[in-house]
Amino acid sequence: MREVAVIGIGQTRVEEHWDKSLREIAGEAVLLALQECGLEQAESLYVGNMMSGSANRQQHLGSYIADWVGMRYTEGYHIEAACSSGAAAFRSALMAVASGSVDSAIAVGVEKMTDSPGGEITTQLATAADADWEADMGLSFVAINALIMQRYLHEYHWSKDDFAGFSINAHANGAHNPFARFQEPINKAGYQKAPMIAEPINLLDASPMGDGAAAAVLIPLDNIRKQAGQKLVKVVASTAATDTIAAHSRKNPIWLSAAEKSVKQAYNQAGISPNDIGVFELHDAFTIMAALSLEACGFAEPGQGPRAAIEEQICPKGRIPISTRGGLKARGHPVGATGMYQIVEVVQQLRGEAGETQVERPVYGMSQNIGGSGSNIITHIFKSE
Amino acid sequence: MREVAVIGIGQTRVEEHWDKSLREIAGEAVLLALQECGLEQAESLYVGNMMSGSANRQQHLGSYIADWVGMRYTEGYHIEAACSSGAAAFRSALMAVASGSVDSAIAVGVEKMTDSPGGEITTQLATAADADWEADMGLSFVAINALIMQRYLHEYHWSKDDFAGFSINAHANGAHNPFARFQEPINKAGYQKAPMIAEPINLLDASPMGDGAAAAVLIPLDNIRKQAGQKLVKVVASTAATDTIAAHSRKNPIWLSAAEKSVKQAYNQAGISPNDIGVFELHDAFTIMAALSLEACGFAEPGQGPRAAIEEQICPKGRIPISTRGGLKARGHPVGATGMYQIVEVVQQLRGEAGETQVERPVYGMSQNIGGSGSNIITHIFKSE
Repeated sequence: MREVAVIGIGQTRVEEHWDKSLREIAGEAVLLALQECGLEQAESLYVGNMMSGSANRQQHLGSYIADWVGMRYTEGYHIEAACSSGAAAFRSALMAVASGSVDSAIAVGVEKMTDSPGGEITTQLATAADADWEADMGLSFVAINALIMQRYLHEYHWSKDDFAGFSINAHANGAHNPFARFQEPINKAGYQKAPMIAEPINLLDASPMGDGAAAAVLIPLDNIRKQAGQKLVKVVASTAATDTIAAHSRKNPIWLSAAEKSVKQAYNQAGISPNDIGVFELHDAFTIMAALSLEACGFAEPGQGPRAAIEEQICPKGRIPISTRGGLKARGHPVGATGMYQIVEVVQQLRGEAGETQVERPVYGMSQNIGGSGSNIITHIFKSE
Repeated sequence: MREVAVIGIGQTRVEEHWDKSLREIAGEAVLLALQECGLEQAESLYVGNMMSGSANRQQHLGSYIADWVGMRYTEGYHIEAACSSGAAAFRSALMAVASGSVDSAIAVGVEKMTDSPGGEITTQLATAADADWEADMGLSFVAINALIMQRYLHEYHWSKDDFAGFSINAHANGAHNPFARFQEPINKAGYQKAPMIAEPINLLDASPMGDGAAAAVLIPLDNIRKQAGQKLVKVVASTAATDTIAAHSRKNPIWLSAAEKSVKQAYNQAGISPNDIGVFELHDAFTIMAALSLEACGFAEPGQGPRAAIEEQICPKGRIPISTRGGLKARGHPVGATGMYQIVEVVQQLRGEAGETQVERPVYGMSQNIGGSGSNIITHIFKSE
């Protein structure tokens, strides 16, 4: 297995791109990533996307995007793992390069959720849940997460307000990210006043939809001629684990077993412990998911996730900075693109390009992308050299 | 890059499975494949499927199928490349094993086209074409292939009847395959009387839809303890190439450039020439595609594909046997599953398990899966040892 590095990144701002098609958004991120590393094209293209078949009436995104960016005759695929489609595309691209099958690959995550001819997006998002036993019973994704959060509050005696810090940190950081959907800070009073969506999840616990794309170029480490002063970002771990598709089938619905499985393997692969992680882009689709991720990944004891927010351990200068570019909450959550935004943001941090919210000299950065209500969890660890 | 072998296969009959859900169909094929090689589960699962998001309101098939077959905490993804989703899943599984990332993987192709809550299947199939410039103009996939066939007839002066042999061979072979959707032979008079769908494509030029799943288990060659007399099937080439998504964008719409690119690379990887191929499961979604595939892969001169059918070179005892288990035409074309059916059938041939339509002692077998109207073409070569 060859060592692989990320040598180019690109992203579009997450927003409602009414004036742009799916291929224009994805193409922009791909071309920016290629441009950054001076490549004209790559040998293969992996497109992470969840809903284009229904939301945009367009499947076959491998050929579709390769064609659009002028990558003629290269290979191209569409990878889907619900909200973890982005990281799944990255992991596929990584294996293509690591196996020696190709010498360069691009992973791009893209989702276009506005202007959907496929109808209501909430219904389409529910295709990530169990169609027979969750979606058809009327459970939306917010509702599933609300049930999980209810149970968590009951079990560990936190109050809803104890989760405010996740949202406040995300928005504070998003304010400095030109690619974030929301660029205004919020405060605790605002969080408390936010309208309820599905008790106990209010508007500021939930990440917003949006259109966007983020991309990365991968090549074998040995093929890089490092220039003086150039910071290199190497992939040191890539792991994934599934869990039951329905949240109600899990023995303990308030513990992310797939995250635990995936992250333990990742620490092993990288030969490090949680203490070595300088920045952690986690999947804060809902504040409860941020808490559960911190616990499953070894940054908080079971049931103690909210404490990390209350004590500001999660802020850029804290013990375990998360959502440093806004996270899903403020940067936005264009589902199939999110995993790639997380990876691009970790690369920015490791290169020292994160501006106002730059973490101090991180050596290892981790991204973790969650599909469904915890049913597919993909972890990557990167190292700055 | 490690050498990889296929050690287990499984498939369901292609038919209208009104009584079975997508996960039941896919699960059956996966469990049969695992059972055949005596494994309880694999480390990763790649699900090839095109339309479940709209046709079955279920995405996230990696977790969904892994959960259903009891593969808890393994990784799982859904790979989509339109009608070439099956081979794309196989190629992804292959790279996971070849890279050393996992020591076992399952690829399963599945499609459930009947009983679709997403409405008309023809419209959903059109999502494999260019949504803006083909589908929205009213072009269905039959119509795109009809335009290609019209041009071919005009350019090379064949008559429509010259394509009958492709359909006759497929149905003759399908009659001996218990997994084929259609198991009755047809004759030339029947072909000539078949109702026209889109001039010049009639009902017997076109492959039927259906529900079905086919699966294969892959492990590193070195991990196999070969038993006396056991036939081993090794993957000796895996390649893919894209072309423009819209047929009208290609310089020559009656030449499969992506097939030529992909197959040349495959012959190189395997170190063989077309003459070494003993059996070729090609993508006869329409008779014209069978002719174009033979040409692009070096089995006929440009414009001479139909001659191979007229001279019965394509029959099980011919020079280049194709559609030996019925092909897309008679076995059926459950789109995302088709590529995996092709691979399973090549494995059957190389093991000598193809019954009445067994090709005489093939050493190399090739499968080629086409996505869209030629916009994604994935080739695999297998060797019997």
